Amino acid sequence: MIQGYDPRTGRPAGEPVAETSDAGVDELVTAAAAAARAWEMTSPFTRAEVLTAVAAALDEHSAELAELADTETALGAARLTGEVARSTGQLRLFAEVLHDGGFLDVAVTEADGAGTPDLRRISRPVGPVAVFAASNFPFAFSVAGGDTASALAAGCPVIVKAHEGHPRTSVATGAVIARALADAGAPAGVFGMVYGVQAGARLLRHPALAAAGFTGSARGGLALQRICAGREVPIPFFGELGSVNPVVILPGAAASRAQEIAAGYAGSLTLGAGQFCTNPGLLFVPEDEGLLDAIAAAVTASQGGPMLSERIHDGFEAAVRELASCAAVKPLATGHPGEGPWSATPQVFHVGLDEFAAGLPGLATERFGPAGLVIGYRDPGELVAVLAGLGGNLAGCIHLDSAREQDRAAATRVMEVFSHTTGRVVCNGWPTGVAVAWAQHHGGPWPATTAPAYTSVGAAAIRRWLVPVVYQNWPPILLPSGLRPGSRPLMAP
Amino acid sequence: MIQGYDPRTGRPAGEPVAETSDAGVDELVTAAAAAARAWEMTSPFTRAEVLTAVAAALDEHSAELAELADTETALGAARLTGEVARSTGQLRLFAEVLHDGGFLDVAVTEADGAGTPDLRRISRPVGPVAVFAASNFPFAFSVAGGDTASALAAGCPVIVKAHEGHPRTSVATGAVIARALADAGAPAGVFGMVYGVQAGARLLRHPALAAAGFTGSARGGLALQRICAGREVPIPFFGELGSVNPVVILPGAAASRAQEIAAGYAGSLTLGAGQFCTNPGLLFVPEDEGLLDAIAAAVTASQGGPMLSERIHDGFEAAVRELASCAAVKPLATGHPGEGPWSATPQVFHVGLDEFAAGLPGLATERFGPAGLVIGYRDPGELVAVLAGLGGNLAGCIHLDSAREQDRAAATRVMEVFSHTTGRVVCNGWPTGVAVAWAQHHGGPWPATTAPAYTSVGAAAIRRWLVPVVYQNWPPILLPSGLRPGSRPLMAP
Repeated sequence: MIQGYDPRTGRPAGEPVAETSDAGVDELVTAAAAAARAWEMTSPFTRAEVLTAVAAALDEHSAELAELADTETALGAARLTGEVARSTGQLRLFAEVLHDGGFLDVAVTEADGAGTPDLRRISRPVGPVAVFAASNFPFAFSVAGGDTASALAAGCPVIVKAHEGHPRTSVATGAVIARALADAGAPAGVFGMVYGVQAGARLLRHPALAAAGFTGSARGGLALQRICAGREVPIPFFGELGSVNPVVILPGAAASRAQEIAAGYAGSLTLGAGQFCTNPGLLFVPEDEGLLDAIAAAVTASQGGPMLSERIHDGFEAAVRELASCAAVKPLATGHPGEGPWSATPQVFHVGLDEFAAGLPGLATERFGPAGLVIGYRDPGELVAVLAGLGGNLAGCIHLDSAREQDRAAATRVMEVFSHTTGRVVCNGWPTGVAVAWAQHHGGPWPATTAPAYTSVGAAAIRRWLVPVVYQNWPPILLPSGLRPGSRPLMAP
Repeated sequence: MIQGYDPRTGRPAGEPVAETSDAGVDELVTAAAAAARAWEMTSPFTRAEVLTAVAAALDEHSAELAELADTETALGAARLTGEVARSTGQLRLFAEVLHDGGFLDVAVTEADGAGTPDLRRISRPVGPVAVFAASNFPFAFSVAGGDTASALAAGCPVIVKAHEGHPRTSVATGAVIARALADAGAPAGVFGMVYGVQAGARLLRHPALAAAGFTGSARGGLALQRICAGREVPIPFFGELGSVNPVVILPGAAASRAQEIAAGYAGSLTLGAGQFCTNPGLLFVPEDEGLLDAIAAAVTASQGGPMLSERIHDGFEAAVRELASCAAVKPLATGHPGEGPWSATPQVFHVGLDEFAAGLPGLATERFGPAGLVIGYRDPGELVAVLAGLGGNLAGCIHLDSAREQDRAAATRVMEVFSHTTGRVVCNGWPTGVAVAWAQHHGGPWPATTAPAYTSVGAAAIRRWLVPVVYQNWPPILLPSGLRPGSRPLMAP
């Protein structure tokens, strides 16, 4: 049984949810495989309508879902209601993607009479997809999240492995989605859910599964990736793992906007009790007393909060203890503790750049929660080599005073590093907050993700679930309709 | 030392080539990593000019390269000269791809004032790429092949691991490429070569390597993939492995074009002594005496030839012996033996559909060389389930009489299977012959390739070597030039 807990009290929240049996997993995958053909053959316009209907149903139940999720995550009604809206926004973005048609990646080479045949390429859905939900976004990276939305849009059946952190929220969300899909005429079997770690592993090993998406810890993700790679027929695994998201404050920005930067940092660091893969784990600042004082003040004033689970809380405490035990690392500031037994208290430490570099890779480890390491540098020119040694991250941020030539020059050099070591390079902003948008790329070099060419947020997330196939020399009448000469890949119904 | 052999005699061909030392490998990768930045920063137009210059240099040396390759591969001057032209055609296609600019995958979302920031996505080269050359295409899938061309086009330095089957051809081709690159102003280090299996493994393990491409056997490819996955920082491995490329002859086609089909089959099966990953290993035909007789006659008249190496020859003989030892499998026809000790004689066997299905997966194993299995069926309706059980292949072919309704209906059902189990579905043609073209897709589900979303032939082959990065809220002056508002991703120099 999977028991949810109220992070504010550490006590059980509601009734436990049953784990899915082996037979139950097999049944769901078999149903998904049986539904795959029918779902693939629906027109993109029909799938867009179905996704829009799912979005509407989730919006309709937003308040009750957010309320339920709050009992299991303590993330607060405002954040959770906003997150439902983010999830339904994602479903609607993929409806747009389906209308656009570019996702089909159609290409045509006409026969040239000199040996080149007629070639017409299009993408097809890869098949049934497993989605491993994350704990820290009970909607936007969970049952109703971007992996589910993008895979359904691609024409793939989806089986979600629910996260143990919010079992009843998962059940309730899944029920809304399943009902909306059925009402909108989607084939039975196109959406299913499994509960429990063992069920998740069995799901990944099922021969009919075609791909998997995951958002979560590096340890969990790498274990699942090994399962995917070790199958008789290996399948692609798209894992978005941990990240420390380095932020660089350049001297001009520190001099002109110390208060604003300090407030922004404390806000980004402590948002959602720091439980974001985009948390600003490393902050590089000039050794400037004004800025350090401002940061210390902002963090001291900041508020902690209950973490999602006892395991996450214990992991955070251990990571902070380990950081604090390094001789070169000094405490800079501590915020207010939050509510309950699993509360994380914001804590920020300080270290010099040379000592930081000497402590790599350990000092650049992700500490999931509101713990920050502020690294003081003397000359921005020293940063490049250190930043280049950090490994892959989801985001890298640079704060500059763009009116100052020296800041611009330094920003260009740091941007050059981040362009090769992160998936998103942010100007004068913080890594938290990943807009759901056409041009978004939420990914990054290993170990930020297991598949750096792909994104889990934004329109391109659909590409994870598509495989090309080319048709050679077919008479028009036998070609898939969108590939016939003179036709457009998408024809309105 | 790596000794090439003349397949026509089995005797050494020329002097051996030295294996690359560990220090030599490290030096090349270090030089490649040092060149990466400069090569990435060249404009796509400049890289197009460089690739065109390399193509011109190879064309200039075509006759001597083909002559040399013939002494190591016995593939014949005509085929080899044609293959050099194919390789230079590939280089020129990627020059076009660079001018087109679509490979940069630029996307822009403008800030909406309501929370969505300005997002501008572009792709960057992944970094130094290892290319593992194949034996059976000493030019088009070797030193000067599509992996090299597409990776250089993407802006990646390339280090080729030469194939042991044609060491002197590799040296000579590499020298032409290196000289042309230097003359065209490409940075030193952008192209290198290593020799020997141990050097190849060290190359893959080097921390500065970013990705690898491979064409060859499933066994070799999977071993290299494990090395890539087991690195401290895993890197993508794009392997194009074996394939049996099922071909289905529908009853109408068999009745109306038996002679033409038999001739086409024998030609495709024995082309290059059958040493193609696109060899038609499985031919499904109606149990029609006319067609079977025609096939037997065409194969009996066909000519074998020397295989590329003793190892390949021994593997072929063993595979044929194993096939012949199956009780249900009967010899159908044998062609003429070729020249020399490593010659492969075309051999075709026959089996009924039910017996074939009972003998899976063994009977669908790749037999590299001119060995074919003809599977007789009674009703095209029986084919679908058997074909769906074959696993991934690079190509699937369907021969039909498109004037006959029954053939069209059956073709549609078989096409539906091949659309999900192969990368290329061919109408009234043979799997051999993969056109170098914009819309080409030379890939397929596992085990045909290790990365079914990608192709190793055609314009999209460049995607293997690119990684996206998105820039958030940057002032125009600090953005990469092609991403500035109002600019086009590519600006002519």
